[in-house]
Amino acid sequence: MNVGELTRDEFENAVKNNPVGIFVIGAVEAHGPHLPLNADTIQPEWIAKELGRRMENILIFPSINYGLHSSTKNMPGTVSLTFDTMRALLYDVLVSAHEKGIDKFLIMTGHAGSGHMTACSEACKRFVRETDCKVMFLTDYDIAADSPDMKGIEGDGHGGMLETSRVLAIRPDLVKNIRPIGLYSDQGFMIRSSAEVCFPDGFAGDTSKASEEIGKRINAFVVDKLEEMIKNGLV
Amino acid sequence: MNVGELTRDEFENAVKNNPVGIFVIGAVEAHGPHLPLNADTIQPEWIAKELGRRMENILIFPSINYGLHSSTKNMPGTVSLTFDTMRALLYDVLVSAHEKGIDKFLIMTGHAGSGHMTACSEACKRFVRETDCKVMFLTDYDIAADSPDMKGIEGDGHGGMLETSRVLAIRPDLVKNIRPIGLYSDQGFMIRSSAEVCFPDGFAGDTSKASEEIGKRINAFVVDKLEEMIKNGLV
Amino acid sequence: MNVGELTRDEFENAVKNNPVGIFVIGAVEAHGPHLPLNADTIQPEWIAKELGRRMENILIFPSINYGLHSSTKNMPGTVSLTFDTMRALLYDVLVSAHEKGIDKFLIMTGHAGSGHMTACSEACKRFVRETDCKVMFLTDYDIAADSPDMKGIEGDGHGGMLETSRVLAIRPDLVKNIRPIGLYSDQGFMIRSSAEVCFPDGFAGDTSKASEEIGKRINAFVVDKLEEMIKNGLV
Amino acid sequence: MNVGELTRDEFENAVKNNPVGIFVIGAVEAHGPHLPLNADTIQPEWIAKELGRRMENILIFPSINYGLHSSTKNMPGTVSLTFDTMRALLYDVLVSAHEKGIDKFLIMTGHAGSGHMTACSEACKRFVRETDCKVMFLTDYDIAADSPDMKGIEGDGHGGMLETSRVLAIRPDLVKNIRPIGLYSDQGFMIRSSAEVCFPDGFAGDTSKASEEIGKRINAFVVDKLEEMIKNGLV
Amino acid sequence: MNVGELTRDEFENAVKNNPVGIFVIGAVEAHGPHLPLNADTIQPEWIAKELGRRMENILIFPSINYGLHSSTKNMPGTVSLTFDTMRALLYDVLVSAHEKGIDKFLIMTGHAGSGHMTACSEACKRFVRETDCKVMFLTDYDIAADSPDMKGIEGDGHGGMLETSRVLAIRPDLVKNIRPIGLYSDQGFMIRSSAEVCFPDGFAGDTSKASEEIGKRINAFVVDKLEEMIKNGLV
Amino acid sequence: MNVGELTRDEFENAVKNNPVGIFVIGAVEAHGPHLPLNADTIQPEWIAKELGRRMENILIFPSINYGLHSSTKNMPGTVSLTFDTMRALLYDVLVSAHEKGIDKFLIMTGHAGSGHMTACSEACKRFVRETDCKVMFLTDYDIAADSPDMKGIEGDGHGGMLETSRVLAIRPDLVKNIRPIGLYSDQGFMIRSSAEVCFPDGFAGDTSKASEEIGKRINAFVVDKLEEMIKNGLV
Repeated sequence: MNVGELTRDEFENAVKNNPVGIFVIGAVEAHGPHLPLNADTIQPEWIAKELGRRMENILIFPSINYGLHSSTKNMPGTVSLTFDTMRALLYDVLVSAHEKGIDKFLIMTGHAGSGHMTACSEACKRFVRETDCKVMFLTDYDIAADSPDMKGIEGDGHGGMLETSRVLAIRPDLVKNIRPIGLYSDQGFMIRSSAEVCFPDGFAGDTSKASEEIGKRINAFVVDKLEEMIKNGLV
Repeated sequence: MNVGELTRDEFENAVKNNPVGIFVIGAVEAHGPHLPLNADTIQPEWIAKELGRRMENILIFPSINYGLHSSTKNMPGTVSLTFDTMRALLYDVLVSAHEKGIDKFLIMTGHAGSGHMTACSEACKRFVRETDCKVMFLTDYDIAADSPDMKGIEGDGHGGMLETSRVLAIRPDLVKNIRPIGLYSDQGFMIRSSAEVCFPDGFAGDTSKASEEIGKRINAFVVDKLEEMIKNGLV
Repeated sequence: MNVGELTRDEFENAVKNNPVGIFVIGAVEAHGPHLPLNADTIQPEWIAKELGRRMENILIFPSINYGLHSSTKNMPGTVSLTFDTMRALLYDVLVSAHEKGIDKFLIMTGHAGSGHMTACSEACKRFVRETDCKVMFLTDYDIAADSPDMKGIEGDGHGGMLETSRVLAIRPDLVKNIRPIGLYSDQGFMIRSSAEVCFPDGFAGDTSKASEEIGKRINAFVVDKLEEMIKNGLV
Repeated sequence: MNVGELTRDEFENAVKNNPVGIFVIGAVEAHGPHLPLNADTIQPEWIAKELGRRMENILIFPSINYGLHSSTKNMPGTVSLTFDTMRALLYDVLVSAHEKGIDKFLIMTGHAGSGHMTACSEACKRFVRETDCKVMFLTDYDIAADSPDMKGIEGDGHGGMLETSRVLAIRPDLVKNIRPIGLYSDQGFMIRSSAEVCFPDGFAGDTSKASEEIGKRINAFVVDKLEEMIKNGLV
Repeated sequence: MNVGELTRDEFENAVKNNPVGIFVIGAVEAHGPHLPLNADTIQPEWIAKELGRRMENILIFPSINYGLHSSTKNMPGTVSLTFDTMRALLYDVLVSAHEKGIDKFLIMTGHAGSGHMTACSEACKRFVRETDCKVMFLTDYDIAADSPDMKGIEGDGHGGMLETSRVLAIRPDLVKNIRPIGLYSDQGFMIRSSAEVCFPDGFAGDTSKASEEIGKRINAFVVDKLEEMIKNGLV
Repeated sequence: MNVGELTRDEFENAVKNNPVGIFVIGAVEAHGPHLPLNADTIQPEWIAKELGRRMENILIFPSINYGLHSSTKNMPGTVSLTFDTMRALLYDVLVSAHEKGIDKFLIMTGHAGSGHMTACSEACKRFVRETDCKVMFLTDYDIAADSPDMKGIEGDGHGGMLETSRVLAIRPDLVKNIRPIGLYSDQGFMIRSSAEVCFPDGFAGDTSKASEEIGKRINAFVVDKLEEMIKNGLV
C-alpha cells in the first residue's frame, strides 16, 4: 500500500497490523550521458513496489527524492543536500511515522556514497537508540552488486553496467541509445575540492555489457534477497 | 520537462535557456476521512505539470514530499518535519540547483500552514539575499481560494469543498464516496498542545458541495493565474 | 505588579496565587516619518499596564525590546533579531519563568510580521508541548484591527491610521506634527531581497484620519477584549 | 537621545554624526530580600542616561532586559537566558545596529556573572572581528567596585552594600527597609548543581553600611570614569 | 619535529619551509581483553614519528586523543565523542593550523569506524573546499590490511591479529599474555541499539597468529607506503 | 593509572572502586620566545601524574591537547578551538566516561583564558545538572599563583616567571636559554580584533627571576593543595 494514497482512517487501520514501513531515499544525480538523473530513485522505488506486491503488511511512504552527493556534487544536474539536512530529514520522518504507530522500518537508498550512507545511518542509529524500533537500513546497490550477474565484473560502479541494466529493466525509455565506457580515477587518500576528478567520464564501468535481461535478473535477485532479509530481520 | 528524467547533458542544455525551475512541496497529512494523505502533493504536482505543458522553458524538479504540520500533527497518517529541517531542506535544494545554473524559481507548496509557510519563506529569503535569484513562493491553495467558485463559501478550509473538488478533478479514484461536513473550532489565541482540537472532524468545510467540475474550474483558474504571475514576475 | 520592581520574596508570594505572567514583546522598527521607533513597544506595554490595573493577579515581566523584522529590516532605525534568536529568547524566558512557578502566560507582541509571529509561536508551541502550561500568544494589533473604528478603513497597516491613533493616545509627544499618507505596494508572491519595496513610504495608511480620540477608543477596545479573553482562556 | 523615541528620519540624521551607541544589558535576578529583581537594569540604565546627559552624540538603545544567571538561577524571581541565546541576542542587535550606520558601541551590563560576561564578550569579539567596529564591553559593577567608597570593604558582592547604595541613590522606593547581612560561601572549585549554595542568604555583604549618599558618590564615580574611558577609547 | 615542543619562533621558522603537518587521531576504545584502550593512538603515533624521522619538513601536532565509536560504544573503557563534536574538532584544528601557515596536511586516524571516518572526512572536505589546502586523510589500518602478512587472513578486524601484532611491535608491555580468538557476528543491515552485538568477544580475529615480527613488518610496510603517498600527494 | 594503558577488563575493575577520573586539558599556544607551545599541557600532566603517584584510586584519561585561545590566537604556533567545540568536546568525554561508571571527576586545564574557562565550566555545569556527578574544575595556574614563591611578584602572567619556573622543573630541555622580560599592555574594556596587542612581547613577566628550584616548590605546592582539595571535595 502506498501511504500517500490512503486516507487517515485507512492508515490507522493498516497500522494496527504492525506493518513494515518502507522509506525509499532517491536522488537527483548525474549518472553519465546515458542515464536519467533520477536513476537512484527509480531503482529502489521499483524494488519497494515489488516487495509491496509480494508481501503482506507493507506500507510504502512517499519517497525522499534528494540525497547527499560528494563526488558528483559539481556535475550538471546533481542536486545535493548537506550532511546535517539529510540526517535531520530522515530522522524527522522516522520519528513522525513512529509516533503514528509504525515500529518496523526498511530504509532503502538508491544512492550509496559514503557521506550519504553515514548521514542516513546516524539518523537511524539515533532513532533506534531513542525508540528501540526495528530498523533495516541499506542501499539496494550493495545487494545488486552481489548478484551472480556481477561475478567477475571489475571497475563497475556509479552509472555503470549494473545501474544501466537495472534502469533498462524498469524504465528503458529513460536510457539513451549509447553504451559508453567510463573509467574510475583513484585519488588515493587525497581529499579533492573537485571531487569529480575521480569520475572523468561522469560514471564508471563498461555499459556495453548492460542489458534489460541482466537488469531484470539483478532486480529480481535484489527483491528475493530483501524479502528474505525482511522476513528474518523485521517480521 | 521533468528534471529527474533528463540526463546530465540534457539538463546542462536546458539550463542554457535560463529556465524557471519549479519545486513542488507536497505533504503526507491527514485530510479527513474522504481524502488521501497526499492530497497536498497531488494538487500542486498537477498544476506544475500543466504549467510545464503550457509554457516553454520550465524545469520541474522531483517533489519534496514532506512538510511541516502543526494542527494535524497528531492525526493518523500525518508525517511532519520540524521547522529547522523544512527550512534547511528547501534552502539546500535551492542552493544546489542554483549552483547548476538555475536563477529563477517557482516554489509551490500544497500545504499552507503558517509555520510551514514561514519555514519555507525563511529559506527563500535567505537564498534570495545571498544569490539575488528571482524566487516566487506560494501555495496554490491561496490562489484557488480566490477562484470564482469559492465566492461566498464560508468555513471552508483544510480538506474541505475546495480541496475535495480539486482532488476529484485530478485523482477521483483516491476520494472516498462520502461527502462529510467538518467544522472548524476556533481556539482564539490559545496555544494548544493538542492543536488538533481546532479540527474536531479532521477537516473543515461542507464537502457535499464538492464536485469534479468545480475542481476542474478551480484548477484551471490556478494555472491561468500562475501562468500570468510567472510571465510577470519570473520571465 | 511589575516583576522587575518586586523583591525575591514578593515575587515568591505573588506566584503562590497562580498569576498570569505577561511578557510584552516590543520592537525597534522604522514606522514612517511620524512615529517613534518604539511604537510597537509603547502600545502593548500600555495595554499590559492597563490589564494589570484592572485585573487581580497579573505579573508583568520586563519587556523584550527587540523583534524580528523583514519588510522594514533595511530601513533606518530598525534593529532586528534573526529568526532563531527570537525563537530562543522567548523560549528561554518562558522556561525560566515557569521554573519559578508561573503556569499561565499572556505573550503580547506589538510587531506583527509573519516571520516574527512564527518565531514566537514556534517558541510557544514547544514550551506548551513540554510543560502543558496555558499560553495565549497574540499581537494587540490584530485585536485593534477588529475595533469599530477600523470598520471600512482600507489599506491601513504598518504605521498607519490605527497605529498613529494609538500612539497619539499614549505618548502624543512622540508623534510628529505631520499626518502623511503611505501606500502599500503589493509584491505578489515574489521574495524580495529588498523587502522594503512593499513600503515605498515606509508605512501604509492615511494618517490624516488618525486622532487621539480614536486611539483611546481602540486602546480601550483592546483592553476590554483581552480582559475577556484572559478570563475565558487563562483564569 | 533614546533611540526608541526617535523617528526613522531622526535616527538617520543622528547616525551621520558617528555617534556612540549604548546598549544596556539588564537582568531579572534575585538580589536578596531588600533589592528589586531589576537592580541590574536600574543601575546601568541610570549611568547610560547620565552619560547621555553629559556627552554629545550618544544614542541609547532600548535595554536588553534579560541576562544569563548561574549562581542565582534557582532563586525566586530570577529569569535566565541560556548561554547561546545571550550570545546570539547581543550579536544580532550589534550587527543590525551596525548595518544602520553605528560603528562605535558601549555595551554595559549590570549583571557581572562570569558565564554571562563570556557570553557577551564572545558576541562582541565575533562582531569586532567581522566588522572592525570599536566596541567597549564592561559591567559598571567592576568600575563601581574601584570607587573610593569601596576601599577596605571586604566580602561585599552580589546585592551587597555597593548595590544597595547605588539602588538607594536611584530608586529608593524599590529598596525595602531592611539592611541585612549576607555571607558568601566559597565552594572552591566544585561545580554545584545547586549553585545557589554559594549565596546562603541570597546576596553577599553587609548592607547596614549602605546609604543613598554612598550610592550617589559611587554612581558619579562610575559616570566620571566611563566618560573618560569613552573619550579615550571610542571617540 | 613535535609541534608541542617548539617555541613560537621555532614554529614560525619551520612553517617557512612549507612543511607537511601531521595530525594523529587516536582513541580510547575497548580492544578485547588483551590490548590497551589506547591501541588506536599508539599505532598511528608510531607511524607519524617514524615518518618524521625519515622525511624532512614534517611537523607532528599533538594528537587528538578521542574519536567517535559506534559498535564498541557501550564496552567498558570506550570514551566516544559525538559525530558533530568529532567533525568540529578536526575542522577547528585544521583551520587554526592553516591560519598559522600550514598548507599541507596528513590526517591519520587509528580508529577506522565508518561514522568516525565520515565525521573526519566531512571536516576535511569542508576545509579543502574553503582553503584549497592539500589534505590526505586515511586510517593506517587500511594500509596495514593490504600488507603481505595479511594475505589470506580472513575474519581479522578490530583488535585482531593485525592490531595485536602491531601493538606488540611498539609497546609489548601493554599487551596481555593471552592470545584469544574473537568472532565477528554479522548483523546484516539491521541497526542495533546495542551495536556491540557484532563483537560478542569485543574484538575480531585469531590473535594466536599475532607476533612482534609480523607487527614490525606491517608497521614498516605502512611507513613505506605512506612515505611514497606523501611524496606523490603532498610534496 | 593511565586509562589509555589499561585493557577493557582492567578498566572495568578499576571503576568498581569508585575512582576519581582526571582529565587534563592542555594547549598548543605561543608562550613567548622561551617556552614550548605545549607548556600548558606539560604542567597539568605532571601534576596529574604526581597525584596519581600519591593517591589511590585515580584514573588519568588521555589529555585533551587543544584549548580555546583569544589573546594569543593570532600568534605563531597557537592552535585554537572555537568556543562551541571546546564546550562540546569536554561535555562529550564527561558523558561517555560517566556512562562507563565514573562518578567523580577532576578537570584540570593548563590554559586559563576566560573564554576557555567558561567554555569548560559551561560543559561541566550542564554535565553536573544532568548527572549529579561530583566535578571539580580548575586551572592549576590559579593554585600556583597562590604559592609562597609568588608573593609580592607583580605583572607576572602568561609565559612569565611562574610558568617558566614550572616548565624548568619538569622539562628543562624545552626551555630556551634566554630569560626575557614581557610587558602586559592593558586594553581596558576595549574588545580588540587583534587581541594580541595586550601581549606586545607575547608573554608577561620577568623570567629572569625564574628557576627550576622555584618551579619545583610551586609544583609541589600545587600537588599538596590539590591532594587536599580532592580529599575534601571528591573523596
